Amino acid sequence: MEKVVVIGAGVMGSALAIHLGNNGHNVNLWGTQWDDKALDQMKETKENKILGAKIPDNISFYYHDQMEEAFKDTKLVVIAVISKGIETMSQTIAKYINDNHVVLSITKGIDGDSLDTMSTVITNNMPETSKGKMSIVKLGGGLIAAEIANGVYSEGIFASEDLEAAEYVRDMFKSDKFRGEVSGDIQGVDLCAAFKNSYAIGMGMIEGIEKGKDNPRAALMARGAIEMANIVEAYGGDRETALGMAGVGDYYVTSQGGRNGQFGKLIGEGNTKDEALEIMEHQTVEGLAITPNGYRFLKELEKEGKINMKKDTPFFLEIYNILFNNKDVKEGIENYWKN
Amino acid sequence: MEKVVVIGAGVMGSALAIHLGNNGHNVNLWGTQWDDKALDQMKETKENKILGAKIPDNISFYYHDQMEEAFKDTKLVVIAVISKGIETMSQTIAKYINDNHVVLSITKGIDGDSLDTMSTVITNNMPETSKGKMSIVKLGGGLIAAEIANGVYSEGIFASEDLEAAEYVRDMFKSDKFRGEVSGDIQGVDLCAAFKNSYAIGMGMIEGIEKGKDNPRAALMARGAIEMANIVEAYGGDRETALGMAGVGDYYVTSQGGRNGQFGKLIGEGNTKDEALEIMEHQTVEGLAITPNGYRFLKELEKEGKINMKKDTPFFLEIYNILFNNKDVKEGIENYWKN
Repeated sequence: MEKVVVIGAGVMGSALAIHLGNNGHNVNLWGTQWDDKALDQMKETKENKILGAKIPDNISFYYHDQMEEAFKDTKLVVIAVISKGIETMSQTIAKYINDNHVVLSITKGIDGDSLDTMSTVITNNMPETSKGKMSIVKLGGGLIAAEIANGVYSEGIFASEDLEAAEYVRDMFKSDKFRGEVSGDIQGVDLCAAFKNSYAIGMGMIEGIEKGKDNPRAALMARGAIEMANIVEAYGGDRETALGMAGVGDYYVTSQGGRNGQFGKLIGEGNTKDEALEIMEHQTVEGLAITPNGYRFLKELEKEGKINMKKDTPFFLEIYNILFNNKDVKEGIENYWKN
Repeated sequence: MEKVVVIGAGVMGSALAIHLGNNGHNVNLWGTQWDDKALDQMKETKENKILGAKIPDNISFYYHDQMEEAFKDTKLVVIAVISKGIETMSQTIAKYINDNHVVLSITKGIDGDSLDTMSTVITNNMPETSKGKMSIVKLGGGLIAAEIANGVYSEGIFASEDLEAAEYVRDMFKSDKFRGEVSGDIQGVDLCAAFKNSYAIGMGMIEGIEKGKDNPRAALMARGAIEMANIVEAYGGDRETALGMAGVGDYYVTSQGGRNGQFGKLIGEGNTKDEALEIMEHQTVEGLAITPNGYRFLKELEKEGKINMKKDTPFFLEIYNILFNNKDVKEGIENYWKN
């Protein structure tokens, strides 16, 4: 059994810690200063109330000033912080990273400054001496944290330039209820993980316009998958990534419910962005942060002649224009359908 | 505006007739002897009650003994009969087919005798003299009939070896609410249209076992798409077909509800096939007819060394074994996840 450190004790970090603990690994769950209460609660009650799951005995808890101890003797490092925190956190953990570490990234997004994928941001901040030695793996797939923590059938895709590392992590996660595929296309998985948030907002929009209808959702489910394949390919990845767990699987889950879809639906029903956020009591809508970064990312690719947004990502373009160019939502959807 | 004959006045035939009529084409809707009542009702009330849609004035109705008149001056022939009737109907219409006809097929299935796709069955029964002249187009996509008839946003894919014919039909269907893609992979679209029925049963099974859970559905949505790509590729088609409307789009719609999903769910809840059909009052479950044909189809491909079912279609294999080899449904799903 392996020793793991999970960085970030939010819902996904805690869920993965619980799953790995249940799989017999020794897990050090490290929390940021905002995770103190969550850590206290898990330590005291031996359960995670938000996830509705018991904490296995082989999980140890580490507070924000205990990072060094949390890394001791670990082989796998799971980074489970939000995209905004990824650069700082990568810099912070860099000093504890050694050449044998395998880093698993689950963060979804595109960096607003560099327009890099999350795994690239992590890679760029790892110790110079470890580059080319330690490996980075990305977990993709339609994975709701509470379902992982409660042993509901789940499937993920583990992607890395280092296939052995991907297999190593996959095997650690593998259980009777958790299936894992392995892929070499880490950038493709990273891009799908980011862009599906925007597409899920788009799926919400059509639900707001054509309530309870199947044909438009089917069309946009397929369209989102095709566009993600186009994006992945333009960035040098494998179209196949969009067909699998990272693309279709994750897009499906995200558009079935969740905040992106809820937000999109409110927009589709005619609310402004501000009104929609007001109704949602200003909860974080991931796709809203990702869409403008995604747009600039695609613009760069377009400048390099690698993609033609009008032809390759027409649905994304409408979503962007509706959210950030004051385009009327009905006009945007109408426009997609006309072309 | 073009003149069209639609063969079969069931829900899909009528819906397409209404859509084409609304698009300004003159449509002759021909019904079999089982469609007499439906034709009477549409003629008298100028609406289709099942579809909840008005009949445009440019639709004319033809009864089963009026096929010759129904074909007069038509260019497009839409075949909208069930898979069991496709061979006989192809033979029947053959005598009215001329070299300029474009035949649009929407029937889903795999022929139980020849193990051919629906478009191959149609092709094989067309007049010898017209072969290589007239064209066959297949419509794929997630298309609920009532939504097409009522002008809800919909998107389909028109596939043909003759891309000009596919574009011709696409343009006839095109409206502000109906978007169409064109593809050269008619066999791929045909295979997706058939196999998604089996996968939708599988999706129902997991819903019966893990009610309301997202991760398992996401996994099997992606898995079904991957397996359809594997099947299409093994048959010489384009994996891309599974990524688009014909694959992901149609699979999504079919698994969201409908009889395949309902049947699968009853199986997942522990009912036998007979019990499930009893509860469903013996409604037709398309996937139940398609699955054994699909299995034999894949077995043939396997014999030819073109596919490895255990590796390339493990989910389909479990669905088949659960439905036709008395495998316990929980064991089947468990087995899929373990491998």
